[in-house]
Amino acid sequence: MPRIAYVNGRYLPRDQGAVSIEDRGYQFADGIYEVIWVRGGRIIDLEGHMERLERSLDELSIKRPFARSVFAVILAQCLRRNRLADGYLYIQVSRGVAPRNHVYPDHGRASVVVTASRARPYDPKVMEKGVRVITIPDIRWQRCDIKAIALLPNVMGKQRAKEAGAFEAWQINALGEVTEGSVSNAWIITHEGEIITHPANNSILSGITRRAVLALVREQGLKLAERPFTLEEALVADEAFLTGTTNFIVPIVKIDKTPVGNGKPGPVTLDLHQAYLTYMDKQNEGC
Amino acid sequence: MPRIAYVNGRYLPRDQGAVSIEDRGYQFADGIYEVIWVRGGRIIDLEGHMERLERSLDELSIKRPFARSVFAVILAQCLRRNRLADGYLYIQVSRGVAPRNHVYPDHGRASVVVTASRARPYDPKVMEKGVRVITIPDIRWQRCDIKAIALLPNVMGKQRAKEAGAFEAWQINALGEVTEGSVSNAWIITHEGEIITHPANNSILSGITRRAVLALVREQGLKLAERPFTLEEALVADEAFLTGTTNFIVPIVKIDKTPVGNGKPGPVTLDLHQAYLTYMDKQNEGC
Repeated sequence: MPRIAYVNGRYLPRDQGAVSIEDRGYQFADGIYEVIWVRGGRIIDLEGHMERLERSLDELSIKRPFARSVFAVILAQCLRRNRLADGYLYIQVSRGVAPRNHVYPDHGRASVVVTASRARPYDPKVMEKGVRVITIPDIRWQRCDIKAIALLPNVMGKQRAKEAGAFEAWQINALGEVTEGSVSNAWIITHEGEIITHPANNSILSGITRRAVLALVREQGLKLAERPFTLEEALVADEAFLTGTTNFIVPIVKIDKTPVGNGKPGPVTLDLHQAYLTYMDKQNEGC
Repeated sequence: MPRIAYVNGRYLPRDQGAVSIEDRGYQFADGIYEVIWVRGGRIIDLEGHMERLERSLDELSIKRPFARSVFAVILAQCLRRNRLADGYLYIQVSRGVAPRNHVYPDHGRASVVVTASRARPYDPKVMEKGVRVITIPDIRWQRCDIKAIALLPNVMGKQRAKEAGAFEAWQINALGEVTEGSVSNAWIITHEGEIITHPANNSILSGITRRAVLALVREQGLKLAERPFTLEEALVADEAFLTGTTNFIVPIVKIDKTPVGNGKPGPVTLDLHQAYLTYMDKQNEGC
């Protein structure tokens, strides 16, 4: 198991990595994070993740702790020290340590933690059989575009999915629309072959895998709509899938108790999954 | 400055108090907290705070770490070791340490941190002159009844108030109603003498000071309505005030750019403030 974490300037055994009880990440969820996939020793979509990380920091007026080049060195060190070729990097940046007070401290220095984890063993059943999602009300705040560590509603949603024996929970807003899953973006493909996913506004996180899949969909000349879709639309869709950094593309074969299409992973979903694997492998060429 | 903190079973110098980088409080805001006032060495409304703490834990299915009697011993120790007579105790309980995964760990042990802080020097101007609040959209999640550490929107709101030179930010929901402040409950008194505050549902935190003030209002036979009030109603109110653990009752004399009533702290507000001080002092009798 990868053992070395980067914690505020030091590389430490992960179980010794600690932050102050007065870190604002701990007391206020005043921080942001990224999860970045690593495949064959290559960091996938690094630029996209760093852009989003910087955007999240900017939205919260947290001073960027380092230049991207420094982050790249730390990430590479974490891979090397943990001998990690396939898995993921976790980056967390908080506003830092200060006596507890809601207002931002005048002279704060961001806290930075990076860990590296092995990929869980690939479960071929997920692609062969697909997965089930449940639906839950979307009770989150109105700035889901910020990748903040204030993840309590997501945690509660994912737990509900687990307790229901499902893979994920799709969140439904007051208009009956599917915004996204607790840890993934949501997609459907209509009977007319239109691929639909919620637009990247304040109601969802603009996933990096989501962006890559959008590009693949466009490349392949498929019909695409970035618009909200309702649960009713999802229940009569031909295909459904989810996207996320650690799961790539996963076919959904049941929403609550309703089978999607013929109840098997859809052909367009499987094609996109293959295209996404190829896309990742291309990033490895020439390394 | 109080220096000793309770951290997971140990009493430590506060600046050495630390939690794991994999504490779920740090990675997911998966935890709750309480702030409890101490006056003349006496903990104010301890039972109310402990009840709410336990309710918050129960709502998140976090196993209660101790019996109330054990919490009481830890709180008393924190007061004694810090020689604190006037100030406040801060309690934070998270779901504990586990490898990062949204779903709840099967065998988690809650993390518990307690700190004690001196009261800030009392500013008599606040009661004499009153304060100004600004208004901001209420962008928070839909379980504000849980006193969770997922406080990022509150932090952002309080920061906006500070930047506007105001004391607090009142949050306005999609219906134009004032829910509560970023760190306090919101109240108005109409021209007809009715005292109004938002009901304790999922949209607000049921403040312990709020509950005490409700009891005082009832005791004094004043007209009371626990119902949502709109910003429009607030702008034509005779009086307005806020309540919170560390501020007690604070008169509001301006909302955005509109003076409240005659622009001075209202007489009913000042009476209630006196009654609240008396209420706290009564808890000290016989100690």
